[in-house]
Amino acid sequence: MTRTAFFISDGTGITAESLGRSLLAQFESVDIRMLTKPYIDSVDKAEALVEVINATAVRDGAQPIIIDTIVDADIRDVISQASGFKVDIFSTFLEPLEKELATRSTYSVGSTHSIGRDDAYMNRIDSVHFALDNDDGARTHQYDKADVILVGVSRCGKTPTSLYLALQFGIRAANYPLTDDDLDEDGSLKLPAALAPFRHKLFGLTIDARRLAAIRSERRPNSRYCSMDQCMQEVQQAEGLFRQMHVPFIDTTRFSIEEISTRMIAETGLNRRLSPR
Amino acid sequence: MTRTAFFISDGTGITAESLGRSLLAQFESVDIRMLTKPYIDSVDKAEALVEVINATAVRDGAQPIIIDTIVDADIRDVISQASGFKVDIFSTFLEPLEKELATRSTYSVGSTHSIGRDDAYMNRIDSVHFALDNDDGARTHQYDKADVILVGVSRCGKTPTSLYLALQFGIRAANYPLTDDDLDEDGSLKLPAALAPFRHKLFGLTIDARRLAAIRSERRPNSRYCSMDQCMQEVQQAEGLFRQMHVPFIDTTRFSIEEISTRMIAETGLNRRLSPR
Repeated sequence: MTRTAFFISDGTGITAESLGRSLLAQFESVDIRMLTKPYIDSVDKAEALVEVINATAVRDGAQPIIIDTIVDADIRDVISQASGFKVDIFSTFLEPLEKELATRSTYSVGSTHSIGRDDAYMNRIDSVHFALDNDDGARTHQYDKADVILVGVSRCGKTPTSLYLALQFGIRAANYPLTDDDLDEDGSLKLPAALAPFRHKLFGLTIDARRLAAIRSERRPNSRYCSMDQCMQEVQQAEGLFRQMHVPFIDTTRFSIEEISTRMIAETGLNRRLSPR
Repeated sequence: MTRTAFFISDGTGITAESLGRSLLAQFESVDIRMLTKPYIDSVDKAEALVEVINATAVRDGAQPIIIDTIVDADIRDVISQASGFKVDIFSTFLEPLEKELATRSTYSVGSTHSIGRDDAYMNRIDSVHFALDNDDGARTHQYDKADVILVGVSRCGKTPTSLYLALQFGIRAANYPLTDDDLDEDGSLKLPAALAPFRHKLFGLTIDARRLAAIRSERRPNSRYCSMDQCMQEVQQAEGLFRQMHVPFIDTTRFSIEEISTRMIAETGLNRRLSPR
């Protein structure tokens, strides 16, 4: 039997969905269809949604699960009339928090992901442009302004990680590719000259050679670039450099971009300029 | 008095922090220091953290607020001994959900933000590279593969939005800048030729001219590019084009990147290829 879950918000829906998925991920054996309903910020929209939920209950033959982060009391009232199993985080926890903090909560509609302070917004946009301007070793003269410089072989995940760091945490991340150009006579990688003055900012990414070959094959099938030999050699040389130069590094093979980023922050103690969104 | 909140997770901490910030955002009058503690995935790490929490309680003269998404029972036990006000989302809601779904939960450690299915990961990385390759009108021959093409004047938020759409939702978003090159003889903007075949994929971004001038000033101070005259004219021409061509558009001035992205998805009914992280 398929069950349906509604993640309902008066804002972007990101918090409701993130929380809902975390809870429902604990029930792998149940087939759950998940629907996010953002911007339910009026009684009219809430009433229309209740009709959808009730129709779903009839169709599924089971009440939908309702997870919401709506704060407006009138809209909450409407949603509460829907036929569903309510996981009501705000009303469950806001009242005890009010007691603990000895103050009333503000119940401001959809404030969590709104634009917030101007400087935080500008910081974030600046970080995105910094990541783009300093992607793939394109420029090296701004490394003094970088919070971190990601290094690794082509296609190990540097670019998405640097962009994620910028968007989520306002961190200025440059990235620099390790290539055959930086090979020594004896076949080992040397630290590229542009990176030498910034060794303390370096963070390495590495990846399983088989996975690297698969990723590169998508881009350039049947090339030397994507061959197992080439990938194994590059990965070995990169890891050798990291160890020799004491550059901390992470194997990205089994990690998502979120995990790579948050583990890197945890390991380096890097200061986040922004809270995650 | 300053209070401290700990967001604790055995994984990235993104869910715990997102939820914690949503709850605590309702208490604007309280000065709350927020600390995220990710990767608390062993009893040892949990015990070390409990010492930090207890020391914080003494220093603050008030118990810290503890919001966690840890699922491992042994680690939970350790954290529960800390001196703190616990907002315990998982144990509050997992049991009733188990009853409702008539099944036991899996309690798998840190599974929410892990890499997941390979194709979802590749899709996300591909979308990021698509956004980069098709940024700022750099290429126009891949527009048939785009899910959406963002259009607007320089620095109205196209690039960060397209990257966010890629990273969060796996949406392939190209973006194209509207410039003086596309002005008609009578001074009105015409639809650039590269966009004409893809009118149904266009989504416009606009921005308040004052804010645009401020943003542009950061990049090129005292230039014609950042003058109020130029900004007002460009914005007016862009909005004129959107209306004339029936291109849906959003004013980004008061919105965060999350809001721009989720509102665009809601308005266009665009299919997300990924759940948000």
